[in-house]
Amino acid sequence: MKFVCSQSELLNALNIALKAVPSKTSLPILECILIEAGESNIKITTNDMELGIETVVNAEVTEKGKIALNAKIFSDIVRKLPEDTVKIEVGENNASSITCGKAKFMIVGQNGDEFPLLPAIEKKEAVTISQFMLKELIRQTIFSVSDNENNKIMTGEFFEINENEMKVTSLDGHRISIRNVKLKETYPSVNANIPGKTLQEIGRILPGDMDQEVNLYFMERYVMVEFNQTVILSRLIEGKYYNVNQMISSAYDTKIVVNKREMMSCIDRAILLVKESEKRPVIIDIHDEGISLNMNSSIGNMDEEITVYKEGSDLTIGFNPKFLMDALRAIDDDEIAIYMTNAKAPCFIRDVENSYIYLILPVNFSTR
Amino acid sequence: MKFVCSQSELLNALNIALKAVPSKTSLPILECILIEAGESNIKITTNDMELGIETVVNAEVTEKGKIALNAKIFSDIVRKLPEDTVKIEVGENNASSITCGKAKFMIVGQNGDEFPLLPAIEKKEAVTISQFMLKELIRQTIFSVSDNENNKIMTGEFFEINENEMKVTSLDGHRISIRNVKLKETYPSVNANIPGKTLQEIGRILPGDMDQEVNLYFMERYVMVEFNQTVILSRLIEGKYYNVNQMISSAYDTKIVVNKREMMSCIDRAILLVKESEKRPVIIDIHDEGISLNMNSSIGNMDEEITVYKEGSDLTIGFNPKFLMDALRAIDDDEIAIYMTNAKAPCFIRDVENSYIYLILPVNFSTR
Repeated sequence: MKFVCSQSELLNALNIALKAVPSKTSLPILECILIEAGESNIKITTNDMELGIETVVNAEVTEKGKIALNAKIFSDIVRKLPEDTVKIEVGENNASSITCGKAKFMIVGQNGDEFPLLPAIEKKEAVTISQFMLKELIRQTIFSVSDNENNKIMTGEFFEINENEMKVTSLDGHRISIRNVKLKETYPSVNANIPGKTLQEIGRILPGDMDQEVNLYFMERYVMVEFNQTVILSRLIEGKYYNVNQMISSAYDTKIVVNKREMMSCIDRAILLVKESEKRPVIIDIHDEGISLNMNSSIGNMDEEITVYKEGSDLTIGFNPKFLMDALRAIDDDEIAIYMTNAKAPCFIRDVENSYIYLILPVNFSTR
Repeated sequence: MKFVCSQSELLNALNIALKAVPSKTSLPILECILIEAGESNIKITTNDMELGIETVVNAEVTEKGKIALNAKIFSDIVRKLPEDTVKIEVGENNASSITCGKAKFMIVGQNGDEFPLLPAIEKKEAVTISQFMLKELIRQTIFSVSDNENNKIMTGEFFEINENEMKVTSLDGHRISIRNVKLKETYPSVNANIPGKTLQEIGRILPGDMDQEVNLYFMERYVMVEFNQTVILSRLIEGKYYNVNQMISSAYDTKIVVNKREMMSCIDRAILLVKESEKRPVIIDIHDEGISLNMNSSIGNMDEEITVYKEGSDLTIGFNPKFLMDALRAIDDDEIAIYMTNAKAPCFIRDVENSYIYLILPVNFSTR
């Protein structure tokens, strides 16, 4: 194998592909990236058996072939090379030379045939969405994916498409995050539970341009995400997802409208008093003049008044401050409406169009 | 105690004072900062028994007094307060309220009288130097201070003043770093071994303005560093420092002049191949056409040619690549002269005026 390509293009591709290199694996070949030199480009593949990434780099290929190189070492080397053309040549026994400018590295690779192939999948119709929108959707919901591997279903996000509407849901047993967006076209219906880890990596890799698109191919057991010169293939999580609709209610007894920044900096201060091992609720006392937030911990206590628009009954309710912060951070609006019923019923943060709904269960603070 | 001051000024002072709060201590009161409210300002003091910092903040004091507050908690709170005036009031049992805008914190402090005082020291004549120059001097020498506590002498930097010349030396048994600077005035002679940790913190705290000065007061067992509204007091390391002059030679058999950036990026690439647990030298082969750098490790090998100006004999010599990097990074010149005698004798990196001298012992590579 022998080819020449640009250092910066190769490095970009490696930075993408690295996301599917497992940090721990019982199959050492997966710590490699596979490089395949074709007619006029090279294909870089990584695979952690859940998630696979393929990305293509333009190259001048003088000898086709493939090689598996240790992902960390090879990408570290490419990162430190001068911005020039890189020549890669594989000789006998997988000895691979990497030359750029006057620098010449020699490392030993592994036979490319030993690298596990990504499953060959027949693409169906693509669902198209802007890179920006997909990246935002992930950011706005990923935090309430559960990391409890004992309940696989909760470790993914549920993507539903009906006509021209896409709905993304995540939940972890204490809260639910829902985003609804309109698509430009109408598609056959889709129900797919995409692993949180896959979405996290997609969120990192996607450049997020407003005017660039990404194609999603939903298949029975896989989802394929295609953009620019990259293809990401992930298994889906099997099993029936929760019926979230029955948990959502639009009835309320108390409504407040808060300034997002003010509320966030207040909670941020309250969190200061919570040690990592401690679970302390922020207690919100809602009355006609505004709301007062209170935090009481072994370190000390904090009180702060915030002026809000209020509608309905007075209420004192406690929340895990982190859950409130996560939801507020995910919302772009400056003014945010929070709907509550009583100190034990879920609270809803949502806009009028239901483009977002964040459900948070309150914390029982009286018995603490 | 009761005073009002600006959040940003208080935070600046805390960020400075935090540098002398020990991360581990058997004396819990040292985890506090001492706040003393005087006539028209407050003094903030921290002390880790080696290093003490005092810094002053303008304040409107309505009741004098003192309190010791947990440094981490108090500074975290101040950091998150809005940019406004902060009111601090200490009530019974050291209960301390911190109010800013509508936020009110309550934490419990400790009796300020329990905080160990910094030694009262009579100041002698100050040595004055620009903040920029002192900060640079530290940056350019601190890396070769030894961290081996078994040899205390090597854990400091030796400051010598003779007339209007200041010389700073650090060494760790494998290398020596020397910087010589001219002072604006002439001073009585000084010999002081300042702990590396003190210098590291001074380097971090000093804003480093070209046109701002810092006063150094050298006393028998202490050095006091005074700038802006801050005083740093540190013990000196006792014991005779090494006679470095007898290790420095200006004779050489081989001289090369290299481009600093080119040399650094080459060594940077060579270091890639060295695992943390491994000690591998970079081997430099000096010949009439230039130099070739070679690194050989369990990961692979690297070869790179660099064009240099060369004078004297050919030579093959090995170095710890990190030591070369540290010295090159500390030098601002674009072109750097390296003087060598043979593969076992120390190499010198220095300029014509001897404003800097970096001695590095080579590594014996033939027996590896």
